[in-house]
Amino acid sequence: MTQKTFDLLEGHMLACMGDSAHDAEHVRRVLFLALEIAEAEPAADRDVLIAACLLHDIGREEQFRDPSLCHARVGAEKAYRFLAGQGFPEPFAAHVRDCVRTHRFRSGDPPTTIEAKILFDADKLDVTGAIGMARTFFYAAQVGQPLYTLLPDGTVSDGTAEEPKGCHSVLREYKFKLEKIYDRFLTPRGAEMARRRQAAMVSIYESVLAEAREPYETGGSILRRCIEST
Amino acid sequence: MTQKTFDLLEGHMLACMGDSAHDAEHVRRVLFLALEIAEAEPAADRDVLIAACLLHDIGREEQFRDPSLCHARVGAEKAYRFLAGQGFPEPFAAHVRDCVRTHRFRSGDPPTTIEAKILFDADKLDVTGAIGMARTFFYAAQVGQPLYTLLPDGTVSDGTAEEPKGCHSVLREYKFKLEKIYDRFLTPRGAEMARRRQAAMVSIYESVLAEAREPYETGGSILRRCIEST
Repeated sequence: MTQKTFDLLEGHMLACMGDSAHDAEHVRRVLFLALEIAEAEPAADRDVLIAACLLHDIGREEQFRDPSLCHARVGAEKAYRFLAGQGFPEPFAAHVRDCVRTHRFRSGDPPTTIEAKILFDADKLDVTGAIGMARTFFYAAQVGQPLYTLLPDGTVSDGTAEEPKGCHSVLREYKFKLEKIYDRFLTPRGAEMARRRQAAMVSIYESVLAEAREPYETGGSILRRCIEST
Repeated sequence: MTQKTFDLLEGHMLACMGDSAHDAEHVRRVLFLALEIAEAEPAADRDVLIAACLLHDIGREEQFRDPSLCHARVGAEKAYRFLAGQGFPEPFAAHVRDCVRTHRFRSGDPPTTIEAKILFDADKLDVTGAIGMARTFFYAAQVGQPLYTLLPDGTVSDGTAEEPKGCHSVLREYKFKLEKIYDRFLTPRGAEMARRRQAAMVSIYESVLAEAREPYETGGSILRRCIEST
């Protein structure tokens, strides 16, 4: 890919991001992680992969405005129209559209080509490890979700229990999704990179849970003693 | 303290919190941590301490609306007026006011009584460890600050370098403040509890930095190769 083509694609990605400048760093990490995975996949078309990585989240804005929309489907069509409009060959635009459409974790539309599988894995890698946990904290804060919830007995839930309607804490997201993500990679290199990051995420979950539980248990029982003794 | 008095103080705390229900869990952790520290301080007045912990952040709303205000000073006066209005003895209300006024880390007004020192340490403990790091991620997301910034050469900054005006990333906050907090505890028990949490925070910082740097370095150089070879 020429520098000029890269700048054109990156410029379109940044324009679609609007004010969420921080998400551009997610896109950059996904691109870099994808290229690292592709080192083990000589058959992968680098140009398709670079374009698909840069454009994979350009439907986010639409999904944010209308949560019934799927950013992967919207982004796939936007990417196709943009590439076709810029004169890229139709098979190239169609291949990028296919990668973007199938990159979403929860989609019932799994990636089939090697480029689509690499994008899928690279995007998932950014949900693993300490970075994945940090992004989960950021997201929880943005949508007003808490770090943890309390069980009916006043102790801190480890995230396995159902939470009140409308509530989805970080510890719940860990037990519900993040913990299981490490088994769902599609390329050998992606799976290996994910496993290298797993211990850091487990350790953050365990430390947050232990540090949250300790005061409720120790201080909580001292408080009951202070109140009962009066 | 009677259950009735506790409920009165807790109810006032919750009423002052407005919509920020999550901050109530910070207040609860501070109360529990303070009672744990007080186990090693038999002379500390538990009733003053409980009241001061519950009321220590009731000036947050005012500071949020007008950042020129200091929530510790505003909260101290609000706590005094509330306690005096509810018929608590004047020396009790004045002592709580004093604890709340001096609890802030950056204040040039250090705590002097043992109850004020315990509140100070308990509040600082909630900025240590994995919970402290999690709260820093939440805060950054709420005020629109990034996880990290890039240096002029395109690599990820470890937080030691100055950042562009208006920018204060999580990694910068760690190097600027969080890393140094462990030496600033005022009670032996508080210092010991902080040291137990230190390794978890250092580990999160190091994991986030390593995972952020790796793709920019490895994938970044592959990308340059892809572009230069065309």
